[in-house]
Amino acid sequence: MPQRYFLQLSYKGTNYHGWQIQPNAVSVQEVMEDALSKILREKIAVVGAGRTDTGVHASFFILHFDTQNSIPENLDIVYKLNSFLPSDIAVQKVWPVDEEAHARFSALSRTYHYFISTEKNPFATETSHKYLKPLDVDKMNQAALRLFNYTDFTSFSRLHTDVKTNNCKIMHAEWTKNGEQLKFTIKADRFLRNMVRAIVGTLLEVGKSKLSIEQFCEIIEKQDRGAAGASAPAQGLFLVDIEYPKKLMSEC
Amino acid sequence: MPQRYFLQLSYKGTNYHGWQIQPNAVSVQEVMEDALSKILREKIAVVGAGRTDTGVHASFFILHFDTQNSIPENLDIVYKLNSFLPSDIAVQKVWPVDEEAHARFSALSRTYHYFISTEKNPFATETSHKYLKPLDVDKMNQAALRLFNYTDFTSFSRLHTDVKTNNCKIMHAEWTKNGEQLKFTIKADRFLRNMVRAIVGTLLEVGKSKLSIEQFCEIIEKQDRGAAGASAPAQGLFLVDIEYPKKLMSEC
Repeated sequence: MPQRYFLQLSYKGTNYHGWQIQPNAVSVQEVMEDALSKILREKIAVVGAGRTDTGVHASFFILHFDTQNSIPENLDIVYKLNSFLPSDIAVQKVWPVDEEAHARFSALSRTYHYFISTEKNPFATETSHKYLKPLDVDKMNQAALRLFNYTDFTSFSRLHTDVKTNNCKIMHAEWTKNGEQLKFTIKADRFLRNMVRAIVGTLLEVGKSKLSIEQFCEIIEKQDRGAAGASAPAQGLFLVDIEYPKKLMSEC
Repeated sequence: MPQRYFLQLSYKGTNYHGWQIQPNAVSVQEVMEDALSKILREKIAVVGAGRTDTGVHASFFILHFDTQNSIPENLDIVYKLNSFLPSDIAVQKVWPVDEEAHARFSALSRTYHYFISTEKNPFATETSHKYLKPLDVDKMNQAALRLFNYTDFTSFSRLHTDVKTNNCKIMHAEWTKNGEQLKFTIKADRFLRNMVRAIVGTLLEVGKSKLSIEQFCEIIEKQDRGAAGASAPAQGLFLVDIEYPKKLMSEC
């Protein structure tokens, strides 16, 4: 019997050209489709909760896929997938969902973390952005609070994307400090392409006192991508949570 | 004026054949001597607090070195070293000490952590040992407590080392669990070559119920390296602290 499944995974993005399949480059999506097709012995296509760019990590990611036949109960698919997949991709859970459930469109919110090392850290070269000069974190937090005043984030979007609107509802935006590590947490109903890295890059300009909080707001109001600061590097960015209606996660 | 210095550093051991200089292999010691010699413009030899094996990490390590001339105050040596060194070695501090101070012989204790991932973790492949089958952590902790009853750890030492005695005073030995991560903390006045990995490997045999706590004690009492379990893999091991008399660290 045909069946739709959700699958929870995590991956270190360092060695991948992002989530989405593309010609002549290894993507997480391609590796997951290959692994599922091999283990389930049928051609499997997967749909991810969103895209992550080259070098971006996910400690929590959801994809869905359909099978021609239900996965046999005695097939330990999580164990089999983890044995088959490379060491930088791990599967936590696989569970059946209604046929209307959709990894991307059913998602209610996404949460990202962005990590900055303010001292040289030999253990975080691939999982944080190193920035050793002074940053005014209070000011970065005051600017981050202003994000709640806006819904159109065109200024922080990649140009020429195929989305219908550039509206997002920001639910959380905050910098916290843990020892020598700075962490930015941002949660929204949806994110535009490149949006978190563009926001972080522009907030860093505020932290370096190259932009005032008022100028940060003006950038958003311009609705013009050229106005914002450079995107922060990919290796500091982690997708860490995706919310779905409770009934979709009940078997999780 | 000649002067002795202590230097605090951290390194990810993955790409090094351990701390100690050896022919035809890159060691952390060699890289540090090259960097200091280059920046101080004289041939510098360094003495480390101890050895770490190939692939073992140090989040805290102390070395000492002597200079012909004091380091000029206006030379920002920490910044210069960090710019020159590769991304997997970081220097935190450099400070002058008495000429009797010795990175190895002045040390009062060392502390190691050993990390085990009990679920596949894409972010810890180089910094933990993956072990996915059940482990009886309570039993591993009961066995670890028995370490305090002994001082001769010949059974956990590499053969044919040049030390005069195999006596160590264990100060701490405990397994703790944080989510899916197991951490073993062990502190002693000194450690024999390979000792932590041999202890962890043998405690893992206890956790797998292949050895009883009594058999664990018998292995120690045999004072025979052949009796112990296989060494746990290098990538889970971190040197995390070294204690010195307070006056040596006062400028730290």
